Amino acid sequence: MTESHTTRILLGPGPSNAHPRVLRALSRPLVGHLDPIFLTLMGEIQDLLRKTFQTDNRLTIPISATGSAGMEACLVNLLEPGDKAIVGVNGVFGTRMIDIVGRIGAEAIPVEAPWGEIVPPEAVIGALKANPEAKVACLVHAETSTGAWQPLEEVGAAVRATDSLFIVDAVTSLAGAPLYVDTWGIDACYSGTQKCLSCPPGLSPLTFSEKALDALRRRKSAVQSWYLDLSMIEKYWGDERFYHHTAPVSMNYALAEALHLVQEEGLEARWRRHQRHHEALRDGLSAMGLPLAAQEGRRLWMLNSVTIPSGIDDAEVRKRLLADYNIEIGGGLGPLKGKVWRIGLMGESSTPANVLLLLTALERILRDLGKDMPDGAGVMAASSILGS
Amino acid sequence: MTESHTTRILLGPGPSNAHPRVLRALSRPLVGHLDPIFLTLMGEIQDLLRKTFQTDNRLTIPISATGSAGMEACLVNLLEPGDKAIVGVNGVFGTRMIDIVGRIGAEAIPVEAPWGEIVPPEAVIGALKANPEAKVACLVHAETSTGAWQPLEEVGAAVRATDSLFIVDAVTSLAGAPLYVDTWGIDACYSGTQKCLSCPPGLSPLTFSEKALDALRRRKSAVQSWYLDLSMIEKYWGDERFYHHTAPVSMNYALAEALHLVQEEGLEARWRRHQRHHEALRDGLSAMGLPLAAQEGRRLWMLNSVTIPSGIDDAEVRKRLLADYNIEIGGGLGPLKGKVWRIGLMGESSTPANVLLLLTALERILRDLGKDMPDGAGVMAASSILGS
Repeated sequence: MTESHTTRILLGPGPSNAHPRVLRALSRPLVGHLDPIFLTLMGEIQDLLRKTFQTDNRLTIPISATGSAGMEACLVNLLEPGDKAIVGVNGVFGTRMIDIVGRIGAEAIPVEAPWGEIVPPEAVIGALKANPEAKVACLVHAETSTGAWQPLEEVGAAVRATDSLFIVDAVTSLAGAPLYVDTWGIDACYSGTQKCLSCPPGLSPLTFSEKALDALRRRKSAVQSWYLDLSMIEKYWGDERFYHHTAPVSMNYALAEALHLVQEEGLEARWRRHQRHHEALRDGLSAMGLPLAAQEGRRLWMLNSVTIPSGIDDAEVRKRLLADYNIEIGGGLGPLKGKVWRIGLMGESSTPANVLLLLTALERILRDLGKDMPDGAGVMAASSILGS
Repeated sequence: MTESHTTRILLGPGPSNAHPRVLRALSRPLVGHLDPIFLTLMGEIQDLLRKTFQTDNRLTIPISATGSAGMEACLVNLLEPGDKAIVGVNGVFGTRMIDIVGRIGAEAIPVEAPWGEIVPPEAVIGALKANPEAKVACLVHAETSTGAWQPLEEVGAAVRATDSLFIVDAVTSLAGAPLYVDTWGIDACYSGTQKCLSCPPGLSPLTFSEKALDALRRRKSAVQSWYLDLSMIEKYWGDERFYHHTAPVSMNYALAEALHLVQEEGLEARWRRHQRHHEALRDGLSAMGLPLAAQEGRRLWMLNSVTIPSGIDDAEVRKRLLADYNIEIGGGLGPLKGKVWRIGLMGESSTPANVLLLLTALERILRDLGKDMPDGAGVMAASSILGS
């Protein structure tokens, strides 16, 4: 591998660009996973994660694998064969939950909505009433495959009044949009490091409420995954420091640094930054005749799905963005393949400069491919949000 | 977290010290997991892993989690409920395999040996003959909890003549001791990055033979882990580049660099280096009255378990090594807790200087704690192997 390569501007569905301090943290000399230095860092990470998730949950840790493993960890720890799981499905990640529920031998009760729309909270609450024995209800806060922003409060309040547990996928939303794990009655929540936390991919922050831990302790069967068994992992992260697996030391250095950066900016200031740049991008795209694809009023700040204009070749545009401007954006998945682009403005990638550069680059490429549009309209519209 | 911290000399059971080039690779700017730059790197990693495992297996990749997840990946992909698994058990890692086999709903047939000894190959071959329907036979090449070096060739040859599959744990042995995946008839082999590869923990190199892939394709049930399902993961690492999960980009940078360093040194030269420093440490410890604990003639080069002298406090010695010399060594696990120290000489940590420093530090600490020993005997004995 050559020592240097191009620095990409990462405006896809993740990873986002990492802050230089985070990259520097990665390269610190190693210590052992039971070294007092590392045990102190583990405590620091747990405290910072609690602040970011806005929870007092004791079991708040990074799982030693990527966000998808966080999803699997929540489901395999809380479900046993034969259990029922209500799952909101309006994109790739709800679909993936259904897949995992099936592998557990549990029964999935899907609550479906068209891709790009939210799952109606009342439909989930209805499913809960119709299935009071359901062990869990699951929703994806930020559906990265569509850009839809799922409301959580109503369902959280409804689940809280039952014996069921509320599982939330916050892979893309954590630190980029309001998320109140305790206030909203979320029992199990997982995220990824490579989205709005702007840390490289490799860990999955996760938090479990006491209600979720009670359910874990009351299981009749062993958790089907040894690697993700939280009853063992919590003994390493708790006072016992009981060896389970060798923690990914360097990735934990990076995560700690990324979480410090979140606190230094302030969680609410960070949310507002994501909102402001989303609005600038949205107005800019709209002025260029490129509407957002997700449900009006339910569009994520950090992941914008854009309808590809008819006659424009999806892959060609993305190829030119990468080759000529070093910009990565994402393509559509599943039924949205070839129909949308997915533009991420996550963490360190959410900057005024990136919004303006992307609008400029898109205008030049689309014009070159024959799409007619007013000169500089995107940048002008975005500027009125960004200020001068 | 403070920006700088002490640089440890890592002589425990892993992680080992990482080469500065590997740490520098970690801090390279991120690219996306579908970026052409990353796809090229993936091919490079696969080629280098094949050379290190000494295999032509197409499916040779790093699993996006630590070595224990590699163990789980092999077992959950190759076993279905009701299958029989012959498992050699002579330490922590064989015991862990039995645990995972149980979570799959498969039946474990343990072939046990005392901790510190090898599992007799003829006992495994006997179990195979008694259970011709066994789906897999599993052995731990380097039992990191005891320092025993398991021979693999005879069992490999026996398994090859059957429909069973041979699974080998090479977490600690890969790149530190001879391992010939193809020649020895190993069907599924996994390792960790933080041992003799001297890369930080976080990935698990894994390789599957065509016989193992055939078994995977003939499964009647879905693999119980979505995250570790190789039938999906191979589509991302293969020509389809089908998105499964977001690859840990930075850890893959580091792994590629670590694998290049292995090739630059040469695999056989690297083995000889591990052998030489083991022999120096062994002779030095012996001259100090500290015998190795594992079975004579079957002692690992990269992990030395040392019997703790009677009257010496295990934890006190390790605490002083860390506080006064910045040296980490490991304690015993399970039945060996308090009875042995585990001294790793893995990858970058396997140097003459580390051998000499450890012997010197141990002599000073043990003498201070009241153990009588000849002056400088350890260093003198080690020097006769290391040369001047």
